[in-house]
Amino acid sequence: MKFLDEYFMRQALKEAIYAFEKNEIPVGAIIGFKNNIIAQAHNLTKKLKDVSAHAELQVIGAAELYLKGKYKSLKECSLYVTLEPCIMCSGAILLAKLGSLVFGASNISFNKVIHNIESSLLLESFFKKRRKYL
Amino acid sequence: MKFLDEYFMRQALKEAIYAFEKNEIPVGAIIGFKNNIIAQAHNLTKKLKDVSAHAELQVIGAAELYLKGKYKSLKECSLYVTLEPCIMCSGAILLAKLGSLVFGASNISFNKVIHNIESSLLLESFFKKRRKYL
Repeated sequence: MKFLDEYFMRQALKEAIYAFEKNEIPVGAIIGFKNNIIAQAHNLTKKLKDVSAHAELQVIGAAELYLKGKYKSLKECSLYVTLEPCIMCSGAILLAKLGSLVFGASNISFNKVIHNIESSLLLESFFKKRRKYL
Repeated sequence: MKFLDEYFMRQALKEAIYAFEKNEIPVGAIIGFKNNIIAQAHNLTKKLKDVSAHAELQVIGAAELYLKGKYKSLKECSLYVTLEPCIMCSGAILLAKLGSLVFGASNISFNKVIHNIESSLLLESFFKKRRKYL
């Protein structure tokens, strides 16, 4: 993993921690363009009462709003997300024509490609906490 | 196609026509619960400058907002959409646990299952009009 990838993933993890603190499923995402973060977001399914309010859809929406036709698409941008995208988000990533994708924890439903211990631990800890109070 | 399916699809088509009139890609969707429409929406990618603002995501969000925990999920509801859902929307339909799906025009990228002439003509007409002004 390159230095910039690591820096961006750490910012995405900050977003995931922020979600955790708000009792949202802790997934964070950022979109980077060259050395800059142009959008950051986290899962908002609980707050918005919307199963589709995943971190990736939130951050793609925010990036597009920020760019507003400044670039024709997000093809020169990279998406960093702390959890492997689901089918819906993978579709959105394709639609947004994002140049590249780096993800942290593997989604156990999918193939394991990259594994990021911190992202996994944060998710495990969230679901342990949730189960405790159920 | 049952009478109720046809009625709901006609309402979805009205949404698609509304999108067409606003120069949005003309796809409309409704969510039905028993005999009632609980949410209706159309593609808003142009207005929201968001490639993920497809009719299905809009209508699922609207239905969830309307239901607000009234039912645990949308599993007793049906989604009617004038165009075969893309990968992103198919993922969202699974996440929302929608009970059933009826779509109009086939997306030429996917397998052809159901074909609805009116929905196809509306889309063809939109893209013809768009090409004329490019």
